[in-house]
Amino acid sequence: MTEAAFAPVPLRWLGPVRISGNVMNGEQEVPLATYETTLWPSVRRGAHVSTMVDGGIRATLIDERMARSVLFEADDAGSALAAARRIEADLPALQAVVSATSRFATLIDINHQIVGNLLFLRFEFTTGDAAGHNMVTLASDALMAHILDRESALRYGSISGNYCTDKKTSAVNGILGRGKNVVTEIVIPEEILRRRLRTSASALAQLNVRKNLVGGAVAGSLRSANAHFANMLLAFYLATGQDAANIVEGSQGFTHAEERGDDLYFSCTIPNLIVGSVGNGKGIDAITENLDRLGCSEEREPGENARRLAVLCAATVLCGELSLMAAQTNPGELMAAHLQFERTSR
Amino acid sequence: MTEAAFAPVPLRWLGPVRISGNVMNGEQEVPLATYETTLWPSVRRGAHVSTMVDGGIRATLIDERMARSVLFEADDAGSALAAARRIEADLPALQAVVSATSRFATLIDINHQIVGNLLFLRFEFTTGDAAGHNMVTLASDALMAHILDRESALRYGSISGNYCTDKKTSAVNGILGRGKNVVTEIVIPEEILRRRLRTSASALAQLNVRKNLVGGAVAGSLRSANAHFANMLLAFYLATGQDAANIVEGSQGFTHAEERGDDLYFSCTIPNLIVGSVGNGKGIDAITENLDRLGCSEEREPGENARRLAVLCAATVLCGELSLMAAQTNPGELMAAHLQFERTSR
Amino acid sequence: MTEAAFAPVPLRWLGPVRISGNVMNGEQEVPLATYETTLWPSVRRGAHVSTMVDGGIRATLIDERMARSVLFEADDAGSALAAARRIEADLPALQAVVSATSRFATLIDINHQIVGNLLFLRFEFTTGDAAGHNMVTLASDALMAHILDRESALRYGSISGNYCTDKKTSAVNGILGRGKNVVTEIVIPEEILRRRLRTSASALAQLNVRKNLVGGAVAGSLRSANAHFANMLLAFYLATGQDAANIVEGSQGFTHAEERGDDLYFSCTIPNLIVGSVGNGKGIDAITENLDRLGCSEEREPGENARRLAVLCAATVLCGELSLMAAQTNPGELMAAHLQFERTSR
Amino acid sequence: MTEAAFAPVPLRWLGPVRISGNVMNGEQEVPLATYETTLWPSVRRGAHVSTMVDGGIRATLIDERMARSVLFEADDAGSALAAARRIEADLPALQAVVSATSRFATLIDINHQIVGNLLFLRFEFTTGDAAGHNMVTLASDALMAHILDRESALRYGSISGNYCTDKKTSAVNGILGRGKNVVTEIVIPEEILRRRLRTSASALAQLNVRKNLVGGAVAGSLRSANAHFANMLLAFYLATGQDAANIVEGSQGFTHAEERGDDLYFSCTIPNLIVGSVGNGKGIDAITENLDRLGCSEEREPGENARRLAVLCAATVLCGELSLMAAQTNPGELMAAHLQFERTSR
Repeated sequence: MTEAAFAPVPLRWLGPVRISGNVMNGEQEVPLATYETTLWPSVRRGAHVSTMVDGGIRATLIDERMARSVLFEADDAGSALAAARRIEADLPALQAVVSATSRFATLIDINHQIVGNLLFLRFEFTTGDAAGHNMVTLASDALMAHILDRESALRYGSISGNYCTDKKTSAVNGILGRGKNVVTEIVIPEEILRRRLRTSASALAQLNVRKNLVGGAVAGSLRSANAHFANMLLAFYLATGQDAANIVEGSQGFTHAEERGDDLYFSCTIPNLIVGSVGNGKGIDAITENLDRLGCSEEREPGENARRLAVLCAATVLCGELSLMAAQTNPGELMAAHLQFERTSR
Repeated sequence: MTEAAFAPVPLRWLGPVRISGNVMNGEQEVPLATYETTLWPSVRRGAHVSTMVDGGIRATLIDERMARSVLFEADDAGSALAAARRIEADLPALQAVVSATSRFATLIDINHQIVGNLLFLRFEFTTGDAAGHNMVTLASDALMAHILDRESALRYGSISGNYCTDKKTSAVNGILGRGKNVVTEIVIPEEILRRRLRTSASALAQLNVRKNLVGGAVAGSLRSANAHFANMLLAFYLATGQDAANIVEGSQGFTHAEERGDDLYFSCTIPNLIVGSVGNGKGIDAITENLDRLGCSEEREPGENARRLAVLCAATVLCGELSLMAAQTNPGELMAAHLQFERTSR
Repeated sequence: MTEAAFAPVPLRWLGPVRISGNVMNGEQEVPLATYETTLWPSVRRGAHVSTMVDGGIRATLIDERMARSVLFEADDAGSALAAARRIEADLPALQAVVSATSRFATLIDINHQIVGNLLFLRFEFTTGDAAGHNMVTLASDALMAHILDRESALRYGSISGNYCTDKKTSAVNGILGRGKNVVTEIVIPEEILRRRLRTSASALAQLNVRKNLVGGAVAGSLRSANAHFANMLLAFYLATGQDAANIVEGSQGFTHAEERGDDLYFSCTIPNLIVGSVGNGKGIDAITENLDRLGCSEEREPGENARRLAVLCAATVLCGELSLMAAQTNPGELMAAHLQFERTSR
Repeated sequence: MTEAAFAPVPLRWLGPVRISGNVMNGEQEVPLATYETTLWPSVRRGAHVSTMVDGGIRATLIDERMARSVLFEADDAGSALAAARRIEADLPALQAVVSATSRFATLIDINHQIVGNLLFLRFEFTTGDAAGHNMVTLASDALMAHILDRESALRYGSISGNYCTDKKTSAVNGILGRGKNVVTEIVIPEEILRRRLRTSASALAQLNVRKNLVGGAVAGSLRSANAHFANMLLAFYLATGQDAANIVEGSQGFTHAEERGDDLYFSCTIPNLIVGSVGNGKGIDAITENLDRLGCSEEREPGENARRLAVLCAATVLCGELSLMAAQTNPGELMAAHLQFERTSR
């Protein structure tokens, strides 16, 4: 391999986003690193709207966990089931195995699936401030060794059985959880909708039903009804040193909007937001600096910095989703905005 | 917004990958930009294997097109259907509308879906050397205006109806096509499997069935049976200035392996590989340089540079997929490789 | 096997349903055969509403075709692609092969998918008044023989490659079509909503978004957003001698509702309604009688009887969907209706 | 409505199926009611094979539960989450509410999903010998009333929020469970494969990978990899008075086959087999008689009769799946068998 170099992805700090909720309250500037630079003014428009509304964007952390599934082979389903029951009954011992691999990894749940003679065990962990990919692989290695020692009917299948699942579409991640599950919400008065977003509550709520819900269903989407979560997730992940391939599962989320009189209730639900404030990628100077500036490298309880990061990311997603959706309520506006920004930024 | 800066994503050029097929023949070094730097030695192992085999990786371009769906509202399904039939019968006129918006965009097909009173039209284009996101949005704007002029029963719904679909999981992209559809294949002799990849044809073929196909199905995956296409796609996309959020649909592909005696047939099918050699992100000096070094900025027929880029990317995906799959056939190997690389690279 | 006997499934003719559209206009009684006899009064309530509205239920036949996919093995993707292109270019010869197997089967389109060295060809046919399962299998047998004669690079894989797909969930059936694609719609005045259905346009439209679209998405549904299409499909299929396992794909459809002032626009889109007026099951006396009574065994152009049957079935689905959805807008109503009917019918 | 009548679906008792496992051991004739009468000899062939193998078909009951999801509206995600936590912590009180509605319904688990301001609660129950549709609706009515009394932040959304989910494709049913989850397995010696099924272990295992797993994935199937589970499920459900629309979720299962030397390991995993030995449809004389003959109306612990029924059904599915898969390994055999049976049965 030739020596390491750097891919310089353009990055900008947008204006502040106003956030309240069960993780943080306040305003914070957010960065987006992307080659698609027309994303900046669009997300910024949403960010600006958040500062005009009381409380801004409410962000609620619903759940957090990291998962790894392992695969065992048995002779038949009967022995797979018997083993699964013993293993799940042995949770405290397994928790001890995990704790010996890392002081931040805690095993919180186990799920199994049996297909013929194959046993898939899905281990679920909390992982402190790390996204936890490596932490749970290390823990699962130890768990497999522990189990193979005790269960003579089981044989090694794979350290990853794709029932985790990492960086691939799935339903399991949304249903059982993987990463931070964050809901962001905002209620926007009619006047701001009209003046800042050139739209109305009814137009935007209707577009959400037709495009994101019906259009998504028609396209054969899976647990996914949104316009472009992936764009903001990618740009935020790159700006903060995340394993950005996790936008695959991050993209599977829901935009839900309702009219409240003439005002608009607008929300983004991101069930699989996978971020960490420590781990791979975080040692690069520019990334360290970005995390500092985001207030995500403070002395806090383990997990608090990562939760703050997740909420900032989720709020940023809402800003971009709101802005694009508003633009699409009007014929021609999307392209016009693209062209204008490209002209002015030359 | 504060001034633009750069996110420095670590990048390395791996050793050469050997490729043959209907787009290119030869060897080429490939770059990967990623915070997950353990990806480098893993993909490199696969690349090295490709150079030990006659013809290396065979890459076949199955199809290429870019799509945008628009959404119209009608009073009822009857008028939506009548309009859809007139529009589809009017293809030559629509093609002229498109050609007036860009000399590289060509409208090649139209598909429709009707849900109640909603009409989704999916326009499919070739877009020369560009991935084509903006090109098809511009063309679709013009097509909508043209159609709304002529079809009094239709009203504007949305410039994007999510039946495209961009950066979201779907089945439509795989079935109707969006981006380059590339299959890469390699046949690896038993000795190389054993000595370079520490595995066997039967072990790897069996793992593919159990993990990627069965495990993927159990996880509720959709048109997706692979280990980690998204990792290589992301790193290659970042290294070459692509809109990397398209790894979402890129991740939906198939690894298929079969025993051929003691040798291994191994293939990766990527139906939605969305890349361009021109367009957003390509103007950055380092990216320009990377595209030059990849031989993707030559004077060629429109589309040829982008096809070469797609094939290089697809072959790189195979290298990484093969290497990880081989590692997972052995207990403990994945984690050991991670730890070893992290130690040696400090 | 012991001698044939009969499973007596309870059947009732509901009151008339009023239908207009591109296939039929008029009123027609419809039968439902089901063990879940509470379905009868519920669907009947919807049927009665259809007779109170001008034009009743508008039914639009969007498309019709029957599909069978075959699977070939090749050495590699390159030869699979070359063969696919030759085969698709040879459509007229393939059409002749098909016509020799049945005077009702006509080959109208071919689609292919290539995964590694595997070639899936999806043949699409019209099949006259038959649902066409056997007709397309017979035709596909002949097509495979014809192709294997000419394409030395292809080997037999399977007469069905599951890309058809029959009686299994899929996205392909909705996107490429299989069976009759029928949209049914009704606009219900506020007074009828209130007095006959104890609901309002806003309550029902909102329920559809929250339950069918959002709830369906959350459940990990696939191209499916409805309350209970499968119930009506099953009961209608059993009453008319259909291969009722096709309710699996029939269940994948969309309920779409919108407020029109205080009135309700309500629609059911059933992309994969697979019925025939001739074929297996139709020779049983009681079934023959039912088809007669439905006006589906008249002397008509081939296909006309089957289309009438499809439209009657689709309208019946709407009646049941509307009635259940209305009931679910009110706490306790669903269970109360069940209990009341069970009491009165004892 | 005109008076009740009967749809006479042809029914046959096949020869005995041999079954062992954690629910039952022995031989039992099974009935199939279907208009597709070519199903009879095909399933019978599989049944006959089961009697030639030691232990016959091993059937393992993995899990059983019935689910109903309800939908609440809140002002925002924060109050939805707070309510969900209180409700889940209050499980014993909720269990008491349920027990008051039925002596057979027991609440065993609660799962929640939050999308914006919407709260979906999925209640999971055991329901004795009933499939439990009405039992869990009645229980959920009581649970909603109980919750609405105590949680002032919640408002009625729907008695069914489609996160159950009933008679619709989903991933949630397979992942969280709904109905009986049954795995059936058989190991077939080479000689029986060759002489009785005209196939080999390698041919059948390979077909399963290519058709059911790859073909299914390509078709955009969801948690589904089989040839035709739905056919046997429908015919068995109709013969035993089940709510046969539940074949929709029943169809979502996995055929898994592996070579064991020259012998074949063949299994069918049916995660959502929804049957009862009491309830709607069971009062019809012919159905009562069938259940008697199946040994499913004995005096046993509550649930035992239904479990026996589930296992008999699952074993029947395997018989039919094995037989069709074997036929499809040979060109032309499927159609020839159809035609031959149709001739001989005239």
